[in-house]
Amino acid sequence: MRIATYIADGTRRVGLVSDDGLTIQPLDLTPQQAAVGALGIIESMAAGGAAPIATGTAVKVAEVTLDAPLPRPRRNLWCVGRNYHAHAKELSASVFKDSGAKTDEWPIVFTKVPECVVGPHDDVLVPSEISTQIDYEAELAVVIGKGGKNIARAAAMDHVFGYTVVNDVTARDVQVRHSQWDMGKSFDTFCPMGPWIVTADEFDGTKTRVRCWVNGELRQDGPTENMIFDIPTLIETISRGITLYPGDVIATGTPAGVGMGMSPPRYLKGGDVVRIEIDRLGAIENKFV
Amino acid sequence: MRIATYIADGTRRVGLVSDDGLTIQPLDLTPQQAAVGALGIIESMAAGGAAPIATGTAVKVAEVTLDAPLPRPRRNLWCVGRNYHAHAKELSASVFKDSGAKTDEWPIVFTKVPECVVGPHDDVLVPSEISTQIDYEAELAVVIGKGGKNIARAAAMDHVFGYTVVNDVTARDVQVRHSQWDMGKSFDTFCPMGPWIVTADEFDGTKTRVRCWVNGELRQDGPTENMIFDIPTLIETISRGITLYPGDVIATGTPAGVGMGMSPPRYLKGGDVVRIEIDRLGAIENKFV
Repeated sequence: MRIATYIADGTRRVGLVSDDGLTIQPLDLTPQQAAVGALGIIESMAAGGAAPIATGTAVKVAEVTLDAPLPRPRRNLWCVGRNYHAHAKELSASVFKDSGAKTDEWPIVFTKVPECVVGPHDDVLVPSEISTQIDYEAELAVVIGKGGKNIARAAAMDHVFGYTVVNDVTARDVQVRHSQWDMGKSFDTFCPMGPWIVTADEFDGTKTRVRCWVNGELRQDGPTENMIFDIPTLIETISRGITLYPGDVIATGTPAGVGMGMSPPRYLKGGDVVRIEIDRLGAIENKFV
Repeated sequence: MRIATYIADGTRRVGLVSDDGLTIQPLDLTPQQAAVGALGIIESMAAGGAAPIATGTAVKVAEVTLDAPLPRPRRNLWCVGRNYHAHAKELSASVFKDSGAKTDEWPIVFTKVPECVVGPHDDVLVPSEISTQIDYEAELAVVIGKGGKNIARAAAMDHVFGYTVVNDVTARDVQVRHSQWDMGKSFDTFCPMGPWIVTADEFDGTKTRVRCWVNGELRQDGPTENMIFDIPTLIETISRGITLYPGDVIATGTPAGVGMGMSPPRYLKGGDVVRIEIDRLGAIENKFV
């Protein structure tokens, strides 16, 4: 099942995407239910409800505006830093060199505010008066289904509702100067998400590939098997003493190839287009303005 | 105006506290409105609505259970680290010694999940299987009224709805091992809040005193005038490129005297009682179990 949130006739709707990815069949939701995108479905199914049945007339994906599947996540998104071996290596030459000291012990976990989420084709606003070091981070995001606390690694995958694509857009200079990363990760529009959520029964997040292009140039290309902390470990770690809820999002970290890791660094500027594609999941593409 | 959220007859209610602090007069709210505590009032007044008028029959504070004024903040709470000069000094001998390097340049800003908020007299759960270094941090919290982005320092106080007391409970070992602090600050029950919100027209957060006792022993005692980054600067900084919303909470940092800063460190254990009082605002007192 692929659940998309989209805008048609000026109204936010939620629907199921066809196998060929070309059409969406709408669900019969109230405007209040549709306002939170796929969240209501996730909460309902986590509580034991049945999968939704789409009964509306299908619309063409090309004729609607795709929105983020979770346009306003229920709280800050959990994000993981330095989680691919090759990326950890490229950081070792940057201002984050110290962050590599404890690689392989514990993941770095920070957050992004829910309001920085935008749709899979929306523009990202470059806060040029605040930062001159805007960077992309292509990431697979896990969407939690059944909530829980102290979830054991062996049971963790039972708590995964599905997956989506995010760009963990980052202002490197702001990230560094506040020591803690949340602010440099949370500027308005800094989390493009989409194109939809693919449920865990149809997609294996532990074996896929994350790629990112800037203006058509391939910059990142990493298999999720190369994560330092795999998805079950991330869920076990984050849920230790902290209850996870249906609809929580965990962005699992980015492969090597970020702009900061290049010599010299290559940051984003107005007009750049960043495309992120995850095999068998889909693609998002956003212009920076 | 002092707005309290409380439980009476098993139901969450919101009301206005009398000048002597002994009674609460309930507001006429639906259960849905009362569920989010003072948030609805803050949003309504930020949108230009009138202050609420309490019409119900007053109840004695002593006969109800006070809840957090914002039992479930709208997103993660913003928190400020190392924001009192004397506290920055005590950290210089700890594992956070490097965090002092950039003192006076930019504040350290991290977050706590909204679900870790508990009431002013609720128990705090010690996650003893996860952490052996539980610490208190007595803090004045600012509640945002009118939202905004890129708020200038000179206009910042116009965006303050009011103030409350929080204990930014922290698992020091978890805080350190993940590099980023959000997890070590976000364990379930790690943010006692209350006893109510005092509105900005009745209380000056820039000139008050924050004190903390552990089992009756005074540990922290700091005037808010000693903040490194004052409240207008914090609002200006956090709102740079990031929209603030009505009901956002900013915990402004803790004075010197945390358990970690002692030699040897003195961490909290089951049975300890932590009381935090802010002059002219009120007190919270929580048992660690």
